Amino acid sequence: MKEETKTTFEVVLTPALLPLYDLKGKTVVVTDILRATSSMCVAFEYGIRQIIPVSHVEDAMVHRKSGLKTAAERDGQKVEGFDFGNSPFDFMIKELEDQSLVMTTTNGTKAIHLSSNAERIYIGSFLNLQAVADRIIKENKSVVVVCSGWKDKFNLEDTLFAGALAALVENEFDMNDDATIAAKTIWDVQKNDLFSFIKKASHAQRFERLGIDKDIEFCLQQNIYNFVPEVADGMIKVEKDLVQ
Amino acid sequence: MKEETKTTFEVVLTPALLPLYDLKGKTVVVTDILRATSSMCVAFEYGIRQIIPVSHVEDAMVHRKSGLKTAAERDGQKVEGFDFGNSPFDFMIKELEDQSLVMTTTNGTKAIHLSSNAERIYIGSFLNLQAVADRIIKENKSVVVVCSGWKDKFNLEDTLFAGALAALVENEFDMNDDATIAAKTIWDVQKNDLFSFIKKASHAQRFERLGIDKDIEFCLQQNIYNFVPEVADGMIKVEKDLVQ
Repeated sequence: MKEETKTTFEVVLTPALLPLYDLKGKTVVVTDILRATSSMCVAFEYGIRQIIPVSHVEDAMVHRKSGLKTAAERDGQKVEGFDFGNSPFDFMIKELEDQSLVMTTTNGTKAIHLSSNAERIYIGSFLNLQAVADRIIKENKSVVVVCSGWKDKFNLEDTLFAGALAALVENEFDMNDDATIAAKTIWDVQKNDLFSFIKKASHAQRFERLGIDKDIEFCLQQNIYNFVPEVADGMIKVEKDLVQ
Repeated sequence: MKEETKTTFEVVLTPALLPLYDLKGKTVVVTDILRATSSMCVAFEYGIRQIIPVSHVEDAMVHRKSGLKTAAERDGQKVEGFDFGNSPFDFMIKELEDQSLVMTTTNGTKAIHLSSNAERIYIGSFLNLQAVADRIIKENKSVVVVCSGWKDKFNLEDTLFAGALAALVENEFDMNDDATIAAKTIWDVQKNDLFSFIKKASHAQRFERLGIDKDIEFCLQQNIYNFVPEVADGMIKVEKDLVQ
């Protein structure tokens, strides 16, 4: 039997289920593997100073008019009139260094806003998976992984990330949450063949139609970055900025 | 590649996600393995003529006062003042033969009511799994499996049923729905060890506290009944009554 005093680890399979969870005092890890939280990690690797997540395209446009760099994606495609879409490759450029970036996406930025009751909100992706695991183990607070899904529906890739994170920290948390058990089961079976599994999924098939197959391959790489972006006061920053 | 013309098979992981699905013209299979839809199957095996599913305990009480047999469960326990709770063993009695039964449960009867836009609603459990599979293959209509969950949260046992049904009919339906792929993946891994897997889950742990462990074992039996209860005009009946 697990000890009663252990902190808990739960998985919210889509943002539509968030109202059922009490986030107070807990750490949320938001994930949107294809592609918002993966691309955010890329932008930080390439020197972005901060990301301002906004829910609506109109809000992003207000920022654009005031001169900020803006990324906007809806239904998997860049919204016309903005600097960037949602592909990780969009952010692999020198000119973003030390800039602020405003970002709005179909699912990921929405999930961040819906998690605002949490004590802390971290940005998780396969790219920084181990760094997120290390952080939540070190802090020893109850964790809720929020999968961004696709328009409030369940998706496989975010669930796989939740399962991967659960597998890395399972000795440190109480994990009798059904969604966590499901996510970890799927991860355990598919971890050595992620790409072909994801390709079966409806979201990936939508991506294939959009010709952004290489984004999927990039976003499934594990542990190429060693930092954890955090949402604080409406901004996303990496630790080096937060502790300044 | 699957043919475009194939009918679709989707899984709704909790009733909270039902508003995202268009049920019009489709067949819904409602499942609440622990225990509503399993117990309904038992009641039909023991000769119940029809079940009237109601959402609220108050509505069930109105029927009780008018003299009907009533089953009411909340939070896993029989509600005081009613004839039966939600255990399959409650319905293994002769005196229910040819009677009408009013039933309200925490999750299952709610899921039935929320599925009312569907063309047909079937009652699915492991007890009549193959019969449900045969029926939906024969009818060749698009199918949505509605998992009743636990108070709108995801649960493992209903997802396992969805995965088991998916596995039986996968050659007949288009199955690129992420939730279906997830459910089938979990089923494929755990199908030979259902009981110990279910015992890990939060719902089963709640059941253990209630001392109804034998209900779980009973409800995980496969294909002991060969009929498919159907919801029509607010009543649940089995085929022999529907065709009279």
